[in-house]
Amino acid sequence: MSLERLRGFRDVYPEEMEIRDQVFDKIKAVVRSFGFKQIDIPSLEPLDLYRIKSGDELLGQTFNFSDRSGREVTLLPEATPSVVRMLTSRKDIPKPVRWFCLPKIWRYEEPQSGRLREHIQLNADIFGSSSEAADAEVIGLACTILDTLGLSGHYEIRLNDRVLMDGILSHLGVPDTRRAFAAIDRFHKVSSDEFIIMLKNAGMDDEAAHRVLKLSGVRSSPSEASEILDDLSLQSDAVKERLERIKQIAALVSKYSDARVVLDLSIVRGLSYYTGLVFEAFDVKGELRAILGGGRYDSLASVIGEQQIPAVGFGMGDVVLELLMRRAGSWRVQENVDSYYICTVNNKLLGKSLQIARSLRSNGYRVTVDLADRNISNQLRMAASSGSRYSIILGEKEIETGFVSVRDMNTGEQRAIPLDQMIN
Amino acid sequence: MSLERLRGFRDVYPEEMEIRDQVFDKIKAVVRSFGFKQIDIPSLEPLDLYRIKSGDELLGQTFNFSDRSGREVTLLPEATPSVVRMLTSRKDIPKPVRWFCLPKIWRYEEPQSGRLREHIQLNADIFGSSSEAADAEVIGLACTILDTLGLSGHYEIRLNDRVLMDGILSHLGVPDTRRAFAAIDRFHKVSSDEFIIMLKNAGMDDEAAHRVLKLSGVRSSPSEASEILDDLSLQSDAVKERLERIKQIAALVSKYSDARVVLDLSIVRGLSYYTGLVFEAFDVKGELRAILGGGRYDSLASVIGEQQIPAVGFGMGDVVLELLMRRAGSWRVQENVDSYYICTVNNKLLGKSLQIARSLRSNGYRVTVDLADRNISNQLRMAASSGSRYSIILGEKEIETGFVSVRDMNTGEQRAIPLDQMIN
Repeated sequence: MSLERLRGFRDVYPEEMEIRDQVFDKIKAVVRSFGFKQIDIPSLEPLDLYRIKSGDELLGQTFNFSDRSGREVTLLPEATPSVVRMLTSRKDIPKPVRWFCLPKIWRYEEPQSGRLREHIQLNADIFGSSSEAADAEVIGLACTILDTLGLSGHYEIRLNDRVLMDGILSHLGVPDTRRAFAAIDRFHKVSSDEFIIMLKNAGMDDEAAHRVLKLSGVRSSPSEASEILDDLSLQSDAVKERLERIKQIAALVSKYSDARVVLDLSIVRGLSYYTGLVFEAFDVKGELRAILGGGRYDSLASVIGEQQIPAVGFGMGDVVLELLMRRAGSWRVQENVDSYYICTVNNKLLGKSLQIARSLRSNGYRVTVDLADRNISNQLRMAASSGSRYSIILGEKEIETGFVSVRDMNTGEQRAIPLDQMIN
Repeated sequence: MSLERLRGFRDVYPEEMEIRDQVFDKIKAVVRSFGFKQIDIPSLEPLDLYRIKSGDELLGQTFNFSDRSGREVTLLPEATPSVVRMLTSRKDIPKPVRWFCLPKIWRYEEPQSGRLREHIQLNADIFGSSSEAADAEVIGLACTILDTLGLSGHYEIRLNDRVLMDGILSHLGVPDTRRAFAAIDRFHKVSSDEFIIMLKNAGMDDEAAHRVLKLSGVRSSPSEASEILDDLSLQSDAVKERLERIKQIAALVSKYSDARVVLDLSIVRGLSYYTGLVFEAFDVKGELRAILGGGRYDSLASVIGEQQIPAVGFGMGDVVLELLMRRAGSWRVQENVDSYYICTVNNKLLGKSLQIARSLRSNGYRVTVDLADRNISNQLRMAASSGSRYSIILGEKEIETGFVSVRDMNTGEQRAIPLDQMIN
């Protein structure tokens, strides 16, 4: 019988949790500052909801089971289908809708650096607009979050467009672009030789496979992309038109953030529901997995709720984010509320200490009252190790004189404060 | 194929979520003001961890399954065993330890008023003190939370003590107090006749069963309990000693809150790990299920981590809390950050609008920028229905004159503000 924590799951102790809580508070404040409203979704859903569009790779990683009624259910492996289900079941909400949520997400994958079996994921989406402005806004929001978390200069946005890729691939005579996307999604994870074999397995001849290998390596600023594609003879009219959209998006993103934005033709994203823009954020050193990823998915609502609702959004997990913030030195407690530790010389005076605590708490302070079930020197030792800013000792003398002394634990300075004032 | 939400699970839309988020923020602030530190626990645990002490009733309600490795796991049906596992695996933390967490909790029960299959539960515990002061502090914390949420006068604390009940029941010659507790836990859910039958099934003779029926109805102020138990000839020395502790706890609780505290001999709590104090909070009208419940469990750590660590704490779900707050009129948005809605006459000016938005956001405002993919009158209609406090229209004229007009949507008042000032 093992009672140990399961592999890939976390116990989060207070020192970490305080940072984590502050980070999420900041994220929520930024997302709300963009006019996004928070929602919450169930953690458990019918497996069917995630079968229809998420793709086979994801389905091989779900924590799914039959519940006591025999219904096939799954812990959320991602959030988008649930969010879309919520949206399509409320037709009264005026669009565009800007929503975000912060659910826990579970995937049965091999735990490794930047990947756990349970993590928290920010999801932010705009529904009801097909404009470049909406595409730019979700990227701009992602950048503003990372900038606010002290990561300016530590990350870059890599974007691409599935319509653009469709255009390029059909220009090359690739027969099955969906299978080609699945291969290209693995570009950075396999060797060139393996990549060529995957492309051939996806139905390409040798020449097409080598050209896809070459184009998968393309990274350029969106404004210079046109020339590069021309050099590679990868341009058609459809491609040109779509490149124009990408340029416009990149120009708008620059109004939100100074983040570097590159067109990266290897970015296609694993999930099968994307229909246009796709993007990811990476650390500039290229050492970590993607920090966040998203894109446009204009057909998911029609599958789930039989409505046409254009949509664009992204998801950001907390695991890679934490790694990057640690490296950037911004994973630390940012501010602290003043806190008091009250020691009580005599158990019978505990009621008085509780009155002082109540008054201080109602004024916004954090107060730990020693439970006074040990002697005063042990209480003082605990006060010193508690991390509290101030300590107070309450004894018979203080009751007699009507003054308590408040000690600043940083400076050692003491001030005598009237007991009445402390209580009221 | 049904994609609908599962029974007993919630989709939380923005209007509800905003209130919910504010309520949890307040709860967290109060708990922290008591010097409690937040932790987080996994949502999925080995089923064995919840087998050892939670009791059979709970095990019949778990969402449990075998994962892809064949391991028997369960979604958290409560939080305490996980918290204790975390505590016992870190021997370096000085005690007493005050911890809280806010996990989602899952139970496969029939959904009804005040009960869902997924809910959020506040858990707050003090580890490492067996004193009355610790018992009083967790009750005092529970009361302070409810008071802060606007529920003063709407609830009462009902407490009891398992040692006291052991004393009374063995005084009555009851053979198996554990089975008696299981019956008494059902006191309010069954008729008197059914209750008597349950008690007899638990091994009592007719006289003992009728006396337990009578004592289960006892509710008194802790200070008057002694006389009542005397009248019922239920007092022994062990009972008297334990009553003294209860009186002390109630006296200390009064330093935290003006909440009514009653000794209620029908409160024994379902979970099998309680070893002393047990308590619940109820709405004063007695219409709802328990708002929260907890108690002392001094032996759980020795079962999970082979250490003796006295412990006392409580759990409060969000479902009954919401019902009670709705009835008390305190389930509503309390405050709102000022928000802006920016309309852009001409798509080409969108970049300027984004600059204004960026500046306003960095000053703490919430700003929705219309994506400008529709005409200005539709944009203005959206501004009006968005709930934003201020609206701004940006057009060629504003760029020319260098002034934008900011309209207060409540008063209709307009002010002209220099464009430069809006941007910087």
